[in-house]
Amino acid sequence: MPSIPKTMRACVLEAYGKIGFRELAVPVPAPDEALCKIRAVAICGSDPKIMAGSQAKMNWPPAFPFVLGHEWAGEVAAVGEAVTGLKPGDRVAGEGHCGCGQCENCKKGDYTVCLNYGRRELGHRHYGHRDQGANAQYNAYRAKALARMPDSLDFAAGALCDTGGAALHGVELTGVTPGGVAVIYGPGPIGLCVLGIVKSMGSDQVIMVGRGHRLQTARELGADAIVDFSREDAPARILELTGGKGADEVFECSGAPAGPHDAVHSVRKGGRVALVGLYDDSAVKPLPLHKIVNEQIKIIGSKANPNVSDRVLKMLDKGVIGWRKIVSHRFPLDRYQEGVDLFVNRRDRVVKVVMEPWA
Amino acid sequence: MPSIPKTMRACVLEAYGKIGFRELAVPVPAPDEALCKIRAVAICGSDPKIMAGSQAKMNWPPAFPFVLGHEWAGEVAAVGEAVTGLKPGDRVAGEGHCGCGQCENCKKGDYTVCLNYGRRELGHRHYGHRDQGANAQYNAYRAKALARMPDSLDFAAGALCDTGGAALHGVELTGVTPGGVAVIYGPGPIGLCVLGIVKSMGSDQVIMVGRGHRLQTARELGADAIVDFSREDAPARILELTGGKGADEVFECSGAPAGPHDAVHSVRKGGRVALVGLYDDSAVKPLPLHKIVNEQIKIIGSKANPNVSDRVLKMLDKGVIGWRKIVSHRFPLDRYQEGVDLFVNRRDRVVKVVMEPWA
Amino acid sequence: MPSIPKTMRACVLEAYGKIGFRELAVPVPAPDEALCKIRAVAICGSDPKIMAGSQAKMNWPPAFPFVLGHEWAGEVAAVGEAVTGLKPGDRVAGEGHCGCGQCENCKKGDYTVCLNYGRRELGHRHYGHRDQGANAQYNAYRAKALARMPDSLDFAAGALCDTGGAALHGVELTGVTPGGVAVIYGPGPIGLCVLGIVKSMGSDQVIMVGRGHRLQTARELGADAIVDFSREDAPARILELTGGKGADEVFECSGAPAGPHDAVHSVRKGGRVALVGLYDDSAVKPLPLHKIVNEQIKIIGSKANPNVSDRVLKMLDKGVIGWRKIVSHRFPLDRYQEGVDLFVNRRDRVVKVVMEPWA
Amino acid sequence: MPSIPKTMRACVLEAYGKIGFRELAVPVPAPDEALCKIRAVAICGSDPKIMAGSQAKMNWPPAFPFVLGHEWAGEVAAVGEAVTGLKPGDRVAGEGHCGCGQCENCKKGDYTVCLNYGRRELGHRHYGHRDQGANAQYNAYRAKALARMPDSLDFAAGALCDTGGAALHGVELTGVTPGGVAVIYGPGPIGLCVLGIVKSMGSDQVIMVGRGHRLQTARELGADAIVDFSREDAPARILELTGGKGADEVFECSGAPAGPHDAVHSVRKGGRVALVGLYDDSAVKPLPLHKIVNEQIKIIGSKANPNVSDRVLKMLDKGVIGWRKIVSHRFPLDRYQEGVDLFVNRRDRVVKVVMEPWA
Repeated sequence: MPSIPKTMRACVLEAYGKIGFRELAVPVPAPDEALCKIRAVAICGSDPKIMAGSQAKMNWPPAFPFVLGHEWAGEVAAVGEAVTGLKPGDRVAGEGHCGCGQCENCKKGDYTVCLNYGRRELGHRHYGHRDQGANAQYNAYRAKALARMPDSLDFAAGALCDTGGAALHGVELTGVTPGGVAVIYGPGPIGLCVLGIVKSMGSDQVIMVGRGHRLQTARELGADAIVDFSREDAPARILELTGGKGADEVFECSGAPAGPHDAVHSVRKGGRVALVGLYDDSAVKPLPLHKIVNEQIKIIGSKANPNVSDRVLKMLDKGVIGWRKIVSHRFPLDRYQEGVDLFVNRRDRVVKVVMEPWA
Repeated sequence: MPSIPKTMRACVLEAYGKIGFRELAVPVPAPDEALCKIRAVAICGSDPKIMAGSQAKMNWPPAFPFVLGHEWAGEVAAVGEAVTGLKPGDRVAGEGHCGCGQCENCKKGDYTVCLNYGRRELGHRHYGHRDQGANAQYNAYRAKALARMPDSLDFAAGALCDTGGAALHGVELTGVTPGGVAVIYGPGPIGLCVLGIVKSMGSDQVIMVGRGHRLQTARELGADAIVDFSREDAPARILELTGGKGADEVFECSGAPAGPHDAVHSVRKGGRVALVGLYDDSAVKPLPLHKIVNEQIKIIGSKANPNVSDRVLKMLDKGVIGWRKIVSHRFPLDRYQEGVDLFVNRRDRVVKVVMEPWA
Repeated sequence: MPSIPKTMRACVLEAYGKIGFRELAVPVPAPDEALCKIRAVAICGSDPKIMAGSQAKMNWPPAFPFVLGHEWAGEVAAVGEAVTGLKPGDRVAGEGHCGCGQCENCKKGDYTVCLNYGRRELGHRHYGHRDQGANAQYNAYRAKALARMPDSLDFAAGALCDTGGAALHGVELTGVTPGGVAVIYGPGPIGLCVLGIVKSMGSDQVIMVGRGHRLQTARELGADAIVDFSREDAPARILELTGGKGADEVFECSGAPAGPHDAVHSVRKGGRVALVGLYDDSAVKPLPLHKIVNEQIKIIGSKANPNVSDRVLKMLDKGVIGWRKIVSHRFPLDRYQEGVDLFVNRRDRVVKVVMEPWA
Repeated sequence: MPSIPKTMRACVLEAYGKIGFRELAVPVPAPDEALCKIRAVAICGSDPKIMAGSQAKMNWPPAFPFVLGHEWAGEVAAVGEAVTGLKPGDRVAGEGHCGCGQCENCKKGDYTVCLNYGRRELGHRHYGHRDQGANAQYNAYRAKALARMPDSLDFAAGALCDTGGAALHGVELTGVTPGGVAVIYGPGPIGLCVLGIVKSMGSDQVIMVGRGHRLQTARELGADAIVDFSREDAPARILELTGGKGADEVFECSGAPAGPHDAVHSVRKGGRVALVGLYDDSAVKPLPLHKIVNEQIKIIGSKANPNVSDRVLKMLDKGVIGWRKIVSHRFPLDRYQEGVDLFVNRRDRVVKVVMEPWA
């Protein structure tokens, strides 16, 4: 590793709606942290929302200027004295959440719903949301929020560790019926990861619901059927495709107002519906509770990506998750605003945009 | 057993809103059925709704005149030739649902969400809804929908087999945290059964939310705290009672418009919310989906009472379910309309009304 | 369908160790039964044991002469009056177990551990063990023990419905770690089915332990590594292959004396071991209980194939289960003894032998 | 709090079989540790085994002299700079295991089967086994291995946090059938804790198997039936008590050679057997594997007490666990050898012995 500079170039949110670039101090890792050189950082659906100020109620960001970015991969540049499993030069990918490790939820393994959320002094971190993120040349991470990448895996793929992990966690929490039927609402980055994962976990028939060019990507990534909700009634079509029974599992990854409602109307009696999107409660179509009770349906909220990184990185490496079709664009981090605009406006057949910081 | 008459007295729904009494033929049991003399039949919250016509979309009832009543206990009067485990004189309680026994859900044990719902020719029954009910001197039941009562158990208690079973099933599907905190919305018959059950399954602190005299009954049945939602903000009070954490499990048994919404706001990060009520989707306050995802909450729809009857009857017999405080009124079946009115209008500190057919 | 004859040709066990052929009456289906023309019937590992008399303690068979055979596929020839989902000409595969449908276990879906095992009068059947089997031109089956085959599936593949189902049930009961490591002891028919299934359910690395030519078949069916226990210490090799950690799940399908012991020594801390073989308790090497407690390991006994047939038939049809390599031999049923000898003595690279009854 | 001395009095294992007393340095807490004044420390069944040298293969203890004792309660005397939830004067109870917090198992919550067992440098601790224990005036503990005691709870009861926690964890891992039958083998300290816990979690009938005076204690603590295995065949008696069906769950807490075997023979088809004892594999009677498979039984190894301390302390405080009958003897720590002898030889109706260090 080359020596570590004192300062670094960073892309910062200066105020809501305003991106800038600054020279910041390179963070000094605490004893249990590793300083990492960021090699790739993906734009998450939550990033533009944070930029726009719609997540202010969550205190995302806590202050300006702020370095966004929580889906990233890179190299270890230096480690704190208490870090044992990592060394400079190791290729790693990061998780967005790092729990306090001491609360009841963290002790049980549910560290993405840490009871000490936001309490930095207790060790909690939510990188790129409450704590400094990856849109820079370097950042320091608690070692347990890092996972080693397979040697052959591209950094741009490693930057999907978080997205793919959110998909895998949602799928594991919900379960997959081997030989069964799974439906996915939303062929965005998470939905396309879910697609590869449920196919690898034994779904016999995977149906993707969406519209536009991403449905074609779903086809290419192995969807057995696609449903364009702008042209047909999606739940009705799914009942038709399943002989009137409905899907064993439905994964709502669209975050769209009608998504959760339609997901429940697509599932079988006794089935399960995962909610993996970000919902705006003021706009969302209410869930049909009568049906949920009468047909004994489970709704499973799934939060981020605990306990899955090693396995997701293998899935990316093996092509279970078809990251080459998901990472549609790469830009130098200088062009962050351009990447965000492209992503938000869904131009140029974009799926996922990966930014590459300055070398 | 005395000999079985050819005809019997029955309380029938003549048309929406109109109760009458008729002399009907005593049913002849099929080979796998038992003819039962009804000794007690409870009024369920769904009965007045069926009477009013608001369940017509479910085909409840399928035609007029119709004998309602699905929460009952009585004695076996005669058995079909294929029935082996029951004999005349046995004291039994009934389940409302009898699955076809052959579909995928029934074979897995999920017979209250039978895929052949309403198909009588395949063996499915939903007594008092699609198939003749217990508001009469006799009815014939498929043997597997019957459970033998403990010798010492009162028929009026046995009539809670269905209500108590719905409570136990909801609790088992949802789980109870031993040493944890459970909240119940709705101190009606199901909620009060849930109260006894969760206390018997290890909840350390049980909080009942409701209003009126039933809260007092909850107190008498062992609630550790009561919250009158008409006087205080229930979720806020629950957070206060749990040190800001929320409950481990919330059981929504009220069916009230705000119940499900408030239930989600009462549960801890990573917690579980059971929906056991009947909801009117046109009136219900939408669930906070953002919180469900962000705090990784599970919503569990629970349907009726599969696979629990033997155990519920023991719980009634042992006093785990405090049926003597739940069965607040008994009437002869002649006075059915009076029982319904009392129940619906919540007069006279009513909780559950049990009707007793003609001897 | 051609008309149904009065008598049929059958291969019968005349006494322990003695196979014969007889002309028997064609069974008449009861109201809930279907008479099936048997087109393919596989030899199960339990068949030679029953023939040899080692299962007499189980009352397998209950009397002589007896028609063995419980892994079969064929065509519906006639149906009883209460059968609705099947008609003559339908291509079906059978399950060995049919529960009484009324006991506590059956009602919950656990019908292969029916509490009324052997009680024919209550509806229980264990075909080819307690009740007449498929080594004949025809047999009558309760309709709920039958599953419709995909149109394109060969009858010889359909005869694997029971074996493949036992594999799938064992795997579902045990669980698979997506992206994890699974070990299988025993590359016999069940083990090779488990291999295809766990790969389809997301195992990243599947290790087969065995010896002889079947290890090569495992390789061809996709095993990532094979371990010949006659040449190396299998648990030691598995620890080596897993970086010292052990497998996430181990499926013991060999029934060999050392299998369960070695399986426990191959699994990770907190892992799960499925027992799917038939064990001779007088010969088996005891399980290391200290390790089971100290490393918090679960041992999961799995019985037969409840609730999986439809899905297994799809897996056979899609090639998830590589039945063409598993069905190594086909014989006319006339040559049953030859088939058994080949199977028992593991000659000619045999894996599974399928017999075809007289047309 | 009074000021902390430099040295303290400790009871040490000088060599196998040899207890001594020494003046040792009071430990200095690391940043994430709390120094605790030990007020009560219970003798665990493993302590005499460690003293005798039979656990040398586990490296228990790693060296001489060694301070044993891992079941304790006391007061916080001082905290490291990174400890936030505790302060001097807090009354606490300890867990024996503290995981590294970073391995795959710890991150999932399974920290008693930490993959970095024994690696002190990574943060793992196993107090009283690999790391200094509580048989002294003071010891330093990682804060996350401590739980705050209810104000009203006696220190002697708090010293059961570990034993009661092992019981609760075993019960939670295994599950309890509400309204069902539970059997416990072994009315020692863990078995008696299991008794209170399963009763509080809804078992309708709890049967304790053992012999001698402890059976009487089980009766006093609420066992519905007791079985003296020295006078009758325990599994046969249990079948008799359960109408031939067997128990829903069996908790093997005796560690006796025949315990696991008999436990499997006491459980119902489809039932679960927890192993919570310490077994000597050279002496143990082998499990009946044929039955485990044929009746689809689960065997669940349970290790120590993760994620339960807060709730166990409440159960002790509420009397769910009848600690006053379990803690049969208290001695000053000076008389440690006497306490051990009494405990090992089961004299004087001993159940659990609690030692009280010098004030």
